[in-house]
Amino acid sequence: MSGGIRLRLSASHNSRRHIVIIGGGFGGLACARALGDSDVDVTLIDRRNHNLFQPLLYQVATAALSPADISEPIRRSLGRYRNIRVLMAEVVGVDSGAKRVRLADAGEVAYDQLVIATGSQYNYFGHDDWQFHAPGLKSIHEARQIRQRLLLAFEKAELAHTEREKQSLLTSIVIGGGPTGVEMAGAISELGRYMISRDYRALAPNQMRVILLEAGPGILASFPQHLSSYAANYLQRIGVEIRLGQRVSAVGGGHVIVGDERIDAGCIVWGAGVKASPAFAWLGMKEPPGGRIPVDADLQVVGLSDIYAIGDTAMALDAEGKPLPALAQVAKQQGEFLGRKLRKGGPQASFRFRNRGNTAVIGRHAAVFDFGSWTLKGRLAWLLWALVHVYLLVNLEKRVLVTIQWIWRYLTRQRGARIIDEDASLIGDQKDVSRMIGLSRRR
Amino acid sequence: MSGGIRLRLSASHNSRRHIVIIGGGFGGLACARALGDSDVDVTLIDRRNHNLFQPLLYQVATAALSPADISEPIRRSLGRYRNIRVLMAEVVGVDSGAKRVRLADAGEVAYDQLVIATGSQYNYFGHDDWQFHAPGLKSIHEARQIRQRLLLAFEKAELAHTEREKQSLLTSIVIGGGPTGVEMAGAISELGRYMISRDYRALAPNQMRVILLEAGPGILASFPQHLSSYAANYLQRIGVEIRLGQRVSAVGGGHVIVGDERIDAGCIVWGAGVKASPAFAWLGMKEPPGGRIPVDADLQVVGLSDIYAIGDTAMALDAEGKPLPALAQVAKQQGEFLGRKLRKGGPQASFRFRNRGNTAVIGRHAAVFDFGSWTLKGRLAWLLWALVHVYLLVNLEKRVLVTIQWIWRYLTRQRGARIIDEDASLIGDQKDVSRMIGLSRRR
Repeated sequence: MSGGIRLRLSASHNSRRHIVIIGGGFGGLACARALGDSDVDVTLIDRRNHNLFQPLLYQVATAALSPADISEPIRRSLGRYRNIRVLMAEVVGVDSGAKRVRLADAGEVAYDQLVIATGSQYNYFGHDDWQFHAPGLKSIHEARQIRQRLLLAFEKAELAHTEREKQSLLTSIVIGGGPTGVEMAGAISELGRYMISRDYRALAPNQMRVILLEAGPGILASFPQHLSSYAANYLQRIGVEIRLGQRVSAVGGGHVIVGDERIDAGCIVWGAGVKASPAFAWLGMKEPPGGRIPVDADLQVVGLSDIYAIGDTAMALDAEGKPLPALAQVAKQQGEFLGRKLRKGGPQASFRFRNRGNTAVIGRHAAVFDFGSWTLKGRLAWLLWALVHVYLLVNLEKRVLVTIQWIWRYLTRQRGARIIDEDASLIGDQKDVSRMIGLSRRR
Repeated sequence: MSGGIRLRLSASHNSRRHIVIIGGGFGGLACARALGDSDVDVTLIDRRNHNLFQPLLYQVATAALSPADISEPIRRSLGRYRNIRVLMAEVVGVDSGAKRVRLADAGEVAYDQLVIATGSQYNYFGHDDWQFHAPGLKSIHEARQIRQRLLLAFEKAELAHTEREKQSLLTSIVIGGGPTGVEMAGAISELGRYMISRDYRALAPNQMRVILLEAGPGILASFPQHLSSYAANYLQRIGVEIRLGQRVSAVGGGHVIVGDERIDAGCIVWGAGVKASPAFAWLGMKEPPGGRIPVDADLQVVGLSDIYAIGDTAMALDAEGKPLPALAQVAKQQGEFLGRKLRKGGPQASFRFRNRGNTAVIGRHAAVFDFGSWTLKGRLAWLLWALVHVYLLVNLEKRVLVTIQWIWRYLTRQRGARIIDEDASLIGDQKDVSRMIGLSRRR
């Protein structure tokens, strides 16, 4: 069963090196590109067929963009390099002795060098059952789940029989005050108030609540204090209730428990911390802190030869011995560095991270930038945020499409993708929906 | 339970007439718009939150456009008219005596006049279980199902262990040779051959098969003979196998049975005839032929007062006593006619259909138009088709977005929306998928 693939992929019976990359996100793709048209064979394996520009995923969740605007088939991104193969398959293990990657249902792939770039996932701190009730923002499916629930809650509120029911449905809870949580809270508040005032007859904008729950003492903790304060003030001005130092003790269908308080909500979003993908288990490792695989300065996995790890799934240290943050730009730079290094097969070199600036967008005219030595906030930061993010999109077509939609959005405040799909998987079955969004037949 | 809604909706305790429209497709929306800003209250009820430009749905199924490009929230379409309410709810019955519409889970809505515009659905001729294996093209969900299966079949083919397996996965079957079937077969063939030659390493374009099955003696039967022949020739030239006079006897997971022959396929699409939505049952009627509710010349349901039916769900006759076809333009014209009539509340008038031309697109440079007294085919028809369809889109934003994507598609042949979502509902669970797309572990 395994023979076919392995033979076909590992060698055209020549002596070219074969590099296998697991994961087609920022890191894996950058690594593959840096190896494009070289004299090594490359196989990139991902369980998705597309890469995803995650920084804009919150705009899919809030009906501003379509999934296709921010994603591209990995095949297409790499199609021009004849030395690169792409496989859509699920990795289930790595045999580091025999140098093989095991795929679910599709045999094995032999490698000479292996790059692990499998990213991170949301951390529910042991409560994986919360995930269905409070999706994070890691995949198109989750973004569509959130969009579906948000829009459906408004529709149900328009039909609600009691004020209490309406109030629950019009409440959204965002758990976690990092960049994703801040972006989501701001976008939901703006979307909701606009939709209500324009398109709903039985609802009033002031009936809507957006609650941002943060366990720590402030939001945007990775940013300088004055930017966090600015963000908090701005969010409050556009109607977001920020609750600090509040730890969620339970998440259920349509409600969150904080301390003794139960808050009913039509839509719950999870943005409270990530952990690395469980790639360490493939290597037979004991779980490292945060799941991140320790790597040397040249990104080689500590203690294993010919296996490298990059991006969120790797624990790399900077010159001062501090862990590098789990950011797209770290993954991308590591991928480029490693690709160039593996291409030449040359001597050891040390990866050095160059900080291009950290950013979060808060609302229609507000964003923050932290460039280390200087910072930027407000309308200018917002404009810069938009320019940078359009520039980072995958190709000219997407850039043009997103630009047009943003300009349209800006001028009209309309959202282009307010579609509720007839798709049970997004919301559970009809009974689940009623339960989830708190339709109060039982009360 | 029912009181709240009914009272709230039926009257602000004034004497304004209340017109209820069920269905927000071409007919219902046109009717509502014609009643906009008049002195009657209007409630439009739909179980979807969006209208859908169905003529371009095949482009969503073949990864050329995103769902949001061809749909808009019904609320947004009608948001500017303060006399119109929109409810997203499922109608479960009509009490024509008490003049009330019953909603699932949300009470009742009283009406003075009722318009039924619930459209049509695919007709599986009693085999409703075929629907999962061979979705039609009536909703965004089905278009995404088809897109998902098509793209996934290519991914699985790239990993296939045997030539036979690969062959099955690279076979697509389109059932029904009407405009939808022709459009799908042409688009799948063009998409598949392009993707294979550009992005797949283990596949060759000539391994791909697209089979168009038609039970009758020719495709595009509603068009003049010379246009049907032109379409058939063009399809064969771009690699579609047309099989005429072949009736499907069974559809299963990943295969179709025609006569004694079993054809395995990675993607199966249903386009073989429609029937009206079962709205007749709400009225306590015995099922009329094709499910279409008989209406008088003024579109009033025969034998019932103050209930009207328009579009695919109505059986209206033209001046010569022939049934009007189930076409978008008929629905739209009937909606406009009825809206104007109800607005004035004036005397009886007869609806007269004006044929704006019938069209089908076949491929990258080919379409056919039938205007009754003259016809058009080929490259010019294709260009006209594109212009007309862009013009018919719902607003300037969508027109600009679709135009840009089409120009991009035309120049690069790339498809912008080749996303496989991690969404089990689109493909069944993993076991189902393997079964469905014919992964031959068992063989």
